[in-house]
Amino acid sequence: MAASLPVLTVATPWDNAEAWRTALAEAAPEFDVRLWGEAPDPARVVACAVWHPPALLFERCPNLRVVHALGAGVEHLLQRSEVRPDLPLLRLVDPVMTERLAQWALAGTLFFQRRFDRYLRQQRERRWLRHDHEDAGETTVGVLGLGVMGRAIAALLRRNGFQVIGWSRLPKELPGLGTWSGSDGLRAVASRSAILIAVLPLTGDTRSILDGDLFAAMPEGGFLINAGRGDHLVPADLMAALDTGRLDGALLDVFPVEPLPADDPLWHHPKVFVHPHAAAISNPRTGAIAIAEGIRAVLRGERPANLVDRERGY
Amino acid sequence: MAASLPVLTVATPWDNAEAWRTALAEAAPEFDVRLWGEAPDPARVVACAVWHPPALLFERCPNLRVVHALGAGVEHLLQRSEVRPDLPLLRLVDPVMTERLAQWALAGTLFFQRRFDRYLRQQRERRWLRHDHEDAGETTVGVLGLGVMGRAIAALLRRNGFQVIGWSRLPKELPGLGTWSGSDGLRAVASRSAILIAVLPLTGDTRSILDGDLFAAMPEGGFLINAGRGDHLVPADLMAALDTGRLDGALLDVFPVEPLPADDPLWHHPKVFVHPHAAAISNPRTGAIAIAEGIRAVLRGERPANLVDRERGY
Repeated sequence: MAASLPVLTVATPWDNAEAWRTALAEAAPEFDVRLWGEAPDPARVVACAVWHPPALLFERCPNLRVVHALGAGVEHLLQRSEVRPDLPLLRLVDPVMTERLAQWALAGTLFFQRRFDRYLRQQRERRWLRHDHEDAGETTVGVLGLGVMGRAIAALLRRNGFQVIGWSRLPKELPGLGTWSGSDGLRAVASRSAILIAVLPLTGDTRSILDGDLFAAMPEGGFLINAGRGDHLVPADLMAALDTGRLDGALLDVFPVEPLPADDPLWHHPKVFVHPHAAAISNPRTGAIAIAEGIRAVLRGERPANLVDRERGY
Repeated sequence: MAASLPVLTVATPWDNAEAWRTALAEAAPEFDVRLWGEAPDPARVVACAVWHPPALLFERCPNLRVVHALGAGVEHLLQRSEVRPDLPLLRLVDPVMTERLAQWALAGTLFFQRRFDRYLRQQRERRWLRHDHEDAGETTVGVLGLGVMGRAIAALLRRNGFQVIGWSRLPKELPGLGTWSGSDGLRAVASRSAILIAVLPLTGDTRSILDGDLFAAMPEGGFLINAGRGDHLVPADLMAALDTGRLDGALLDVFPVEPLPADDPLWHHPKVFVHPHAAAISNPRTGAIAIAEGIRAVLRGERPANLVDRERGY
């Protein structure tokens, strides 16, 4: 490996760190790509691709010029003072991840709309009972968060015949999609949605946004799907809404602490479906291409599309 | 009610008989539409819309000229000698039912492809473990049966990015869809399919077609979805295939005896998902329109598209 190349270092606690290193070495041959523990000389590190990286990385690399997250949510990086405000921070927007998330949201929507949840409970009791259901064209799905992910989900659901509406914190106009914003708008969307799908960024404004007030605004027997962050949800409010029948099911892919602790009551609530943060597993092969492009843009002095706005929080 | 109108009688053990009667009265105002027990004079009955009808209906109605099934599968009517060969027999092809079945097949496909089945089992053990998955474009789904239903399923899966191939007993050419036929063709489709979806008519040729030989031809860890008839499947072979890992899951909507008896081992097999014949609940409102058109065509002396070919069996 060319000893004179600048170093791009990979730091993540995931077990696919080596897959990321290999994919980045292929996508960015102008760098010497190394796992953080194997970086030869911190002074040569100019870029890093990270997820929950060690503080040492930022302290020891005086020539670090760009930080690229290995995922879409960057709140864990924004909370850390080592990631200095002058360091450009990029989040991963990978078309394969976006497609995977949209498909998972469709899978969850169909799971509830076609009552797979209810038939699972009936099966445990060996109970044979058909339930009629609303067809897709009669089912309104509200998407909370209208970034790249939310828009992809809305488009896929509409292609499959669902009525889709959307909400974002700040007003957003999207062709053909009814959208609302602000807190009044949130209640308006909730009141119209048989199914709510949350893919919000985690900021001070969105923390605990999925709470009892929101569930109270939804039609009786609604469903919640959360693929944003665990801290968007107030779990006690969700379980109360499920127990009173206000909501009839929830599919959760994200939790305040991951892995979800073994004693968490969400694990065994009969109307909660727990997925292990698997809705949009990032794909090193395609993700590395996006990361290489973002890092190159910053080093050329350009402003990449997925640069994090630290004021906004995503 | 005009006493001189010819009578269309509705005979079904389902609890929605009255909904069918009302919908047919609206769709076919040229008839006096009556439930079988309330038909005023058997000699006035010229048409019937039935599901598991009483033998008496055929014996007592000398002027009966057309029999319309209230569902898509008519093997139970073909087995009965009262349904004389000279009586035109029609099966229900309702666009709403077709759409519902296709959507259910998509829901089942996503359920397995995105491993909702596996995460359900993990949740019971409070186990947090992500599994990577093949994307839709890398997943081949084989559709067995290429009638109206099978073609609708194939089209919807393709619109959602899946690789789809098909099989029918007799050769069929469909634009853009790789198809096979005959028993060699069946093995060829099975060997290429991560997921097999069966929507076959029940005939002497297709009874017990979903058996150990078929499962042995599939790739390791495949999935079966059956929405045809229960007698297509050899349940013992399915459970053996699931227990050895040859198959990794099955979603069944149909059974030889329905409701599925409480002591049937399929109820509690951890890799079998039992639905109560709910994949394509027929819709009286739209179904009645199709039935009225079919009956009118026969009475005008035309040959409707959904006339059952008794030789073929569907």
